Amino acid sequence: MSDDTYTPPRVWKWDADSGGKFASINRPVAGPTHEQELPVGKHPLQLYSLATPNGVKVTVMLEELLARGFREAEYDAHLVNILEGDQFGSGFVAINPNSKIPALVDHSTAPATRVFESGSILLYLAEKFGAFLPGDPGARTETLNWLFWQMGTAPLLGGGFGHFYAYAPEKYEYPINRYTMEVKRQLDVLDRRLADHQFVAGEEYTIADMAIWPWYSAVVRNEAYDAAEFLEAHTYRNVNRWVEEIGARPAVQRGKMVNRTWGDPAQQLRERHDASDFEKRTQDKLATEEA
Amino acid sequence: MSDDTYTPPRVWKWDADSGGKFASINRPVAGPTHEQELPVGKHPLQLYSLATPNGVKVTVMLEELLARGFREAEYDAHLVNILEGDQFGSGFVAINPNSKIPALVDHSTAPATRVFESGSILLYLAEKFGAFLPGDPGARTETLNWLFWQMGTAPLLGGGFGHFYAYAPEKYEYPINRYTMEVKRQLDVLDRRLADHQFVAGEEYTIADMAIWPWYSAVVRNEAYDAAEFLEAHTYRNVNRWVEEIGARPAVQRGKMVNRTWGDPAQQLRERHDASDFEKRTQDKLATEEA
Repeated sequence: MSDDTYTPPRVWKWDADSGGKFASINRPVAGPTHEQELPVGKHPLQLYSLATPNGVKVTVMLEELLARGFREAEYDAHLVNILEGDQFGSGFVAINPNSKIPALVDHSTAPATRVFESGSILLYLAEKFGAFLPGDPGARTETLNWLFWQMGTAPLLGGGFGHFYAYAPEKYEYPINRYTMEVKRQLDVLDRRLADHQFVAGEEYTIADMAIWPWYSAVVRNEAYDAAEFLEAHTYRNVNRWVEEIGARPAVQRGKMVNRTWGDPAQQLRERHDASDFEKRTQDKLATEEA
Repeated sequence: MSDDTYTPPRVWKWDADSGGKFASINRPVAGPTHEQELPVGKHPLQLYSLATPNGVKVTVMLEELLARGFREAEYDAHLVNILEGDQFGSGFVAINPNSKIPALVDHSTAPATRVFESGSILLYLAEKFGAFLPGDPGARTETLNWLFWQMGTAPLLGGGFGHFYAYAPEKYEYPINRYTMEVKRQLDVLDRRLADHQFVAGEEYTIADMAIWPWYSAVVRNEAYDAAEFLEAHTYRNVNRWVEEIGARPAVQRGKMVNRTWGDPAQQLRERHDASDFEKRTQDKLATEEA
């Protein structure tokens, strides 16, 4: 890549026309662009999300909590269409000033509690229900180490590698090399960890697995970026073992469907308001196929 | 920028010669490169770090704890020279398999507790001492929201904007535009938040401020990237107000000096093993100046 004629201006100016596939959702300013109230369903927990890896973390957690018998984890999952700018509506910005999914409101507290950033939501739910975060201090700290690790690595995996390899308007060699090196390093960090441990934080399934799995399973299973061969994802054998093990969990499979609007229609549950919605979706699909 | 001839290979291969200023510290594999034991000082808390923004978060927290009277927060801060590969030594990898500073070991627990990722360390210390993290559930959640927000934004600010604007071997227009837009958005998110609140999480000084301040104060004060004019950093008036307010705290000024190896020699304390080291540093400097 040669670009030796470019010199940044003294002061940067916004050119709204550049930016590739997700250009319409990137802005140099924060705050709402329009008035838009958020829907509120019947459960105390109201989730506003989309089935990106960050969204899936939280729906997996909620489905796991329900599978473990925590009935107070019942939730409404409302679809936030980020390509249509729902995240810039006044109601959404009020619960997440950063305008990113997922965002959660817990109406069981007085006043209601807003929770944003997927890692913060996982920790909030783990502490609220006392689940998927070990009680032993050492194991708890190790779980949080890896939860924070994921928060720092995903922007380089998704916003870096994913953007430049799959979504940017052109293929730029230098950024692709930069972020490929980093993603392979991340995969190797995980692979070495999972060589000696069943789960990321040790021998217990935790919110660290829930945070990390959606991002790296998408790479390993080639569900994102079409980069599995490029990254030689199959060579990270322990990561592959763990991806399949976690992916076989029914709660994970349910969590992946919620707020999904792309891919196999049989795997999409655009909104989720009740546990029975998963069965209804299957029945609807069968009815459609029989019709 | 035009690069229409580049097509990524089917499988990526490492070219160790590319990568710009920090190329020597980026690798596509994890794990140790050499045997190297870590020094252990006299205090229960052993920090292995460098005065980058992520390192400063933790030294500020420790100095704030000491200033508030928590004598058990006394610590040894050992220098990790990342340009010389100290982070790939076997001892360091054993406490942080991700090979990034800062990393902390708490020897007051049995067994000793390793803590890595700056956000995890801040949360660990806040919970250990019951300080700088509100006890009120709503305020605690809001603090954690912003702590996690910082973990997700810094890779785009430092690894994205900082790299392409200041450190990459060439100036590439597309990545610079991409990350400039994001950094300005982050500054605006903060600016709006700080318009209505003295501190990031509300009216109390917390670990969220400690996490966010080192990164954005470096931009606003033009201590990193030489990009203050390019970003029009002075226009974020509430961020500027907050940067100065936090920056005036004596504990913050001490924290910034620890494990610093560049800039004004009067502001460097390469290793810190005792509170008196700050005064000794000043005395040494005066002696040198008088000699």
